[in-house]
Amino acid sequence: MTDLSKGAAWMAGDILPIGEAKMSVMDWGLTHSDVTYDVVPVWKGGFFRLDDYMDRFLESLSAMRLDPGLSRAQMVEALTDMMAASGLQDAYCAMVCARGVPLIPGSRDPRECGNHFYAWCVPYVHVIPFEVAEAGASALIPDSPRRIPQDSVNPRAKNYHWGDFTDGLFQAKEQGFNTVILLDHAGNVTEGPGFNVFAIKGDRVVTSGHGVLGGITRRTVLEMVAERGMTPEERPLPLEEFLEADEVFLSSSGGGVTPVVRVGYRVFGNGAPGPVASALRKTYFDWLVAPKFRTEIAYA
Amino acid sequence: MTDLSKGAAWMAGDILPIGEAKMSVMDWGLTHSDVTYDVVPVWKGGFFRLDDYMDRFLESLSAMRLDPGLSRAQMVEALTDMMAASGLQDAYCAMVCARGVPLIPGSRDPRECGNHFYAWCVPYVHVIPFEVAEAGASALIPDSPRRIPQDSVNPRAKNYHWGDFTDGLFQAKEQGFNTVILLDHAGNVTEGPGFNVFAIKGDRVVTSGHGVLGGITRRTVLEMVAERGMTPEERPLPLEEFLEADEVFLSSSGGGVTPVVRVGYRVFGNGAPGPVASALRKTYFDWLVAPKFRTEIAYA
Repeated sequence: MTDLSKGAAWMAGDILPIGEAKMSVMDWGLTHSDVTYDVVPVWKGGFFRLDDYMDRFLESLSAMRLDPGLSRAQMVEALTDMMAASGLQDAYCAMVCARGVPLIPGSRDPRECGNHFYAWCVPYVHVIPFEVAEAGASALIPDSPRRIPQDSVNPRAKNYHWGDFTDGLFQAKEQGFNTVILLDHAGNVTEGPGFNVFAIKGDRVVTSGHGVLGGITRRTVLEMVAERGMTPEERPLPLEEFLEADEVFLSSSGGGVTPVVRVGYRVFGNGAPGPVASALRKTYFDWLVAPKFRTEIAYA
Repeated sequence: MTDLSKGAAWMAGDILPIGEAKMSVMDWGLTHSDVTYDVVPVWKGGFFRLDDYMDRFLESLSAMRLDPGLSRAQMVEALTDMMAASGLQDAYCAMVCARGVPLIPGSRDPRECGNHFYAWCVPYVHVIPFEVAEAGASALIPDSPRRIPQDSVNPRAKNYHWGDFTDGLFQAKEQGFNTVILLDHAGNVTEGPGFNVFAIKGDRVVTSGHGVLGGITRRTVLEMVAERGMTPEERPLPLEEFLEADEVFLSSSGGGVTPVVRVGYRVFGNGAPGPVASALRKTYFDWLVAPKFRTEIAYA
């Protein structure tokens, strides 16, 4: 038997150990970062909001003019077969479509490449380590780099253009912060590597409405906020306003809601997670197991 | 005997057929486009300006804090061994260093990945097909996307963040143009997918001095321009000035100097390559075989 416990991949109909899942070094998915992806959480043996993640993946495919060569139902089947074979109950489950290699060697025409879909999964990833998230995370907001603007690369088509995040992460890690949040060129708070960002002031919960990924966890947060009777706002979020918030937090499919207790020199809530962010964090984990959001996986 | 005539790769000390050269789908080189590269032309059995390309690659490695795990001499040896084994006399010869896979599964710290160097080569690539370049190319300058700004991703560290170029290429190809040139957010002409851009007005030859790759072919052009007694200028190049030039052209390690005869509705030189760009094109091919720039390869 093949050991898939460290992760599995689905490639061209085959299910492989994650270590064997590879892409050609000539694939434009690599050489032009010409690729889109999505990541659906698997929690206690079921997909969370699978339809919403598939909706977004299909929107990304369309925006980037990528053809996976499979129907939506076939892609769901691939994800399900892979997860079932892996045995992983809590997983990071990625679906990817890359531009592929030019069908005519040397061609520079993106219409002449062999697009291809694949999927892979590994044990569930917390973008902020669980213990750190429980205690409240710290983030650096550097003056530079600024988030790649939306009229350069569309952030709503989920993509691997992370050079700005990586540059920022190096700065954050070297200064002792857990992660980084980037500003846009107008000085508004945008997003970080793998998460959206929120600020709470009174009963208003604000998150950027432009230049960021339309996160499914972000959407889940906006729904939870409305359910609590608070007011969600999607609009530009200036740095000055962000730093004067009562509480700030991150949202990610890799860990849900993470309270942030320090941003640069600014300490929030005397360094402890605030009541609203903590409540939202708990509600997110409750929703992860709520039947209405789940698609159970029939493991082998 | 393994057939390397379609291309070869050097990976971890082994020389492979290009079709077998692959990267993990979990490598940050792919999932974060966290990778730098360079491409040195091989022409008639020798590297062109190898030292200059190696200098730039080392600068890119440093800027992106990537450690190839090999000395400069070892990397040159890898390239040379690979080229010699391939038998290719005219080649696109790429050297690459990727961030690698996190050494601790799930880590989001770029300092905790296993960086790795590899190389690959294929028959020489003309980024604009040779016949098109001889007759003069056409280019679209779309209003959007704008080139990823240099305070988001450093264009001088050669990178695979090509989402803006690919979006532009789709527009260009669908409107019947050979390629695309992007503006920066201030309306200046920057660069295109795989090339720098120049405008000639009188005896002045202007190319952008910011927000673009420091192309080795660009540098070669600036040297050829000086040798002709013309005046090279590196500075912002507004679109209006570009469209009023006598001649415009592209420079690339994949094909040298390419005259451009049409940019959108603007036709240059009645649709024929101009005298200066044509002369520079010829001189570039002369320089490709000039001993002072060459490092001959001892083929097997």
